[in-house]
Parts: sequence; structure tokens; C-alpha cells
Amino acid sequence: MARTGRRPARPADEEASASPDTRSSILAAARAGFALSGYDGASTRAIAAAAGVDAALIHHYFGSKQRLFVAAMEIPFDPDAVRREVVGGPRDTVGERIVRFFLDLWEEPVRRQILLGMVRSAMTDPEAAAMVRRLVIEGTVLPLVAETGVTQSAMRATLVGSQLMGLALIRYVLCVEPLAGTPVETVVAAVGPTIQRYVTAPIEGLPPGAD
Amino acid sequence: MARTGRRPARPADEEASASPDTRSSILAAARAGFALSGYDGASTRAIAAAAGVDAALIHHYFGSKQRLFVAAMEIPFDPDAVRREVVGGPRDTVGERIVRFFLDLWEEPVRRQILLGMVRSAMTDPEAAAMVRRLVIEGTVLPLVAETGVTQSAMRATLVGSQLMGLALIRYVLCVEPLAGTPVETVVAAVGPTIQRYVTAPIEGLPPGAD
Repeated sequence: MARTGRRPARPADEEASASPDTRSSILAAARAGFALSGYDGASTRAIAAAAGVDAALIHHYFGSKQRLFVAAMEIPFDPDAVRREVVGGPRDTVGERIVRFFLDLWEEPVRRQILLGMVRSAMTDPEAAAMVRRLVIEGTVLPLVAETGVTQSAMRATLVGSQLMGLALIRYVLCVEPLAGTPVETVVAAVGPTIQRYVTAPIEGLPPGAD
Repeated sequence: MARTGRRPARPADEEASASPDTRSSILAAARAGFALSGYDGASTRAIAAAAGVDAALIHHYFGSKQRLFVAAMEIPFDPDAVRREVVGGPRDTVGERIVRFFLDLWEEPVRRQILLGMVRSAMTDPEAAAMVRRLVIEGTVLPLVAETGVTQSAMRATLVGSQLMGLALIRYVLCVEPLAGTPVETVVAAVGPTIQRYVTAPIEGLPPGAD
């Protein structure tokens, strides 16, 4: 991440006077950059340019591209709130609630940009992939599945994750019609039973004690 | 795609004597490069270096990075054979056959590399995304679903695509355990019923005439 500094440096006193606004501008530019190009494709120099700051400021605030990514992709929801909202309801419709919650996350434009950045980055960058695993599967889906009290929750969580991630891929990344343009509640009705089965039904073929 | 030519050029007569082997070496290097870094991340120069040829040869053979990509990502299966194998069997187990066929594709190391390259590239490159849509959804899943004679085959095809793509993502790209290490037949038993439902069951909430 050598600083090539082709843009003229800002006055030396800017760093001292850098406001929370500067940090926010950098984070917003980083989200946009990672969402568009993924982790590999987005350069800190381009992000600095988009934020209207010198690349040195990014190093000052975040230390490295990796840390900038982690800060920019900051978890866009509260896992405890998710658990209350999703698990606190009839057990036989938990699948629908999971799909609805997941789609609502993605439907919101700013969060969608963050999530797109995460997914794109996870494709080519092992650190970003580890972050998605930790955040989406281990940090959110697994506790949620475990809370329903089923066995084999780890396997169930990855099955749930596979359907949700694929839904995001088709609907929001590749934008394949008609699924991309289908109303949320129609998708909930179509995909909810899949998630319901992965979470609560006996799943044939799963080796016992996969937890 | 300017030729920067930092590697020493091969003798001028190489182009004239270029064998099918040279083309194959370039394609193999391209598959490896696109699989590792995606479309944006892989440079033709690096691909040329890996193939041990001058970058000019890539232009000679393929014209552009885009065309090199299309050639390297050449459809790794015969859609007609897929239809015969998958649709030619009991209708109530078509879901299992689709999952088994899809996993068998990915389990084979060379094809997995091609498919990884496709998926990674589709994340950030609109041309590659269009190619995945055309190849996977419109070219393979949709005709297959349509052949079973159901209504709303376009919507069903995208639902099937969402589960299959998500399965590939979790199992082969993000490598999330335990799903990543689960034997093929166990995954077939777990995911088959999902695909079966998307293909043949009435799907609540789907607007009539979505075809």
C-alpha cells in the first residue's frame, strides 16, 4: 500500500484538525468503493480521492486497507435485536421471519451497499471471506438456529446460510429476473418453507451429532 | 489493456509457429488467474507471464481480456446431456438429481476452477454477470425446469438458481464447515427436497402467469 501521492497533499494542519466528518467521509467513500469493486479492486488512493482527502489520512485513521475495510463494513445490524425479532415468535413460522429479516436488511439502500461490498470482497479476499463467515454464519445464523433448540445446529446454519446467500446473489448482485423484481412478501412465501425445513425439520442424511 | 511489455519478448517467429499448445497454456493460465482473482483482479500481463508467453500473443489469439475470459470460461458441460441425465428420471426425485449433477460439476478440480472464476468475476464485472445469467440460469436451469412441464418456470428457475449458487458459495468459495466437508450424497439428501419443491410444488405467493 505504498503511498504514491499523485494528488497534491492537503495542508499539514488538516490532520490535526480532522473532524469526525472527515472520518465519516472516508468511511462513506470506502463503502461505495468496496461495494463497487470489492476488496481487491478498490484502492485506498481512489477511496481517498472520492472522499476528497489525502491518502495519508486513511493511514492516519485506519492504519491499513484491511482495517479500513473492517471499519467500513461495520456490522449493519444488532445481532441481539435479530434474535429477539426472529426467534421471539411461533416456531413454525421462524423460516418466514428469517427470510423477511434478511430481505429487509438488503432492501435498505445504504445497508445494501455495505452488504454488496462484503459479498464481493469475500469472493477474492480470504480475510473478507473469514469476516463473512464470522459475521453472517457464526455470528448471526448459528446462534439463531441454536436458540430454537434443534440438534445439528452447525449443519443447519450452513444450509440456511446457503439459501440466504444465494438469494442475495441472484436478487441483488446478479439481479436475475423475475426474482430480482419480486415483492419481498412473495419471496418470503416462496423461500420461507425452505428455511423452516433447514431450521426445524429432521434432515435426512445428516450424520448424527454433527454439532 | 496497454501492452507494457516488461517481460522480454519472445523471438518474432514464435507467433507464426504458435501451436495449439500455446493457446491451451494461455487458457489454462487464464482459468487459474480468473479463478484466483476474478475478472477485475486478473491482468492479461500476469496471465501471459504464468503461461510463459508474451502478452502480445494473448492479443493475437483472443483480441481482448473480455474475449480471453469468454474463451477460458467456456461452458464446462453439455446442456443437452444435463437435460437427458436430469429430466430423464422419476419426476419426484428430479430435485435430488439436479443437486447431484450440480455438485458433481463442482467436485471435479478443473471445472471447479472454471466455475470459481465465473462466480468471482460475476461479482464485479457486468459482462461476466450477464454470462452467468445466460449460462447458468437461462441456458441450463430454465430449460430444465421448463421441461418438467410446470407453470411459472422463470420464477422457479431463479429460485433453484438461488439455492444452487448459494450452495456453491458456502461450500466452494467461502468453504464454511460443516457444509464444505459434507459428503455429496448427504448434501443431496438435505438440499434435494428444496429444489424439488421449487421445481414441482405449488409455490404459495407466486403471482399467476409469472412466465
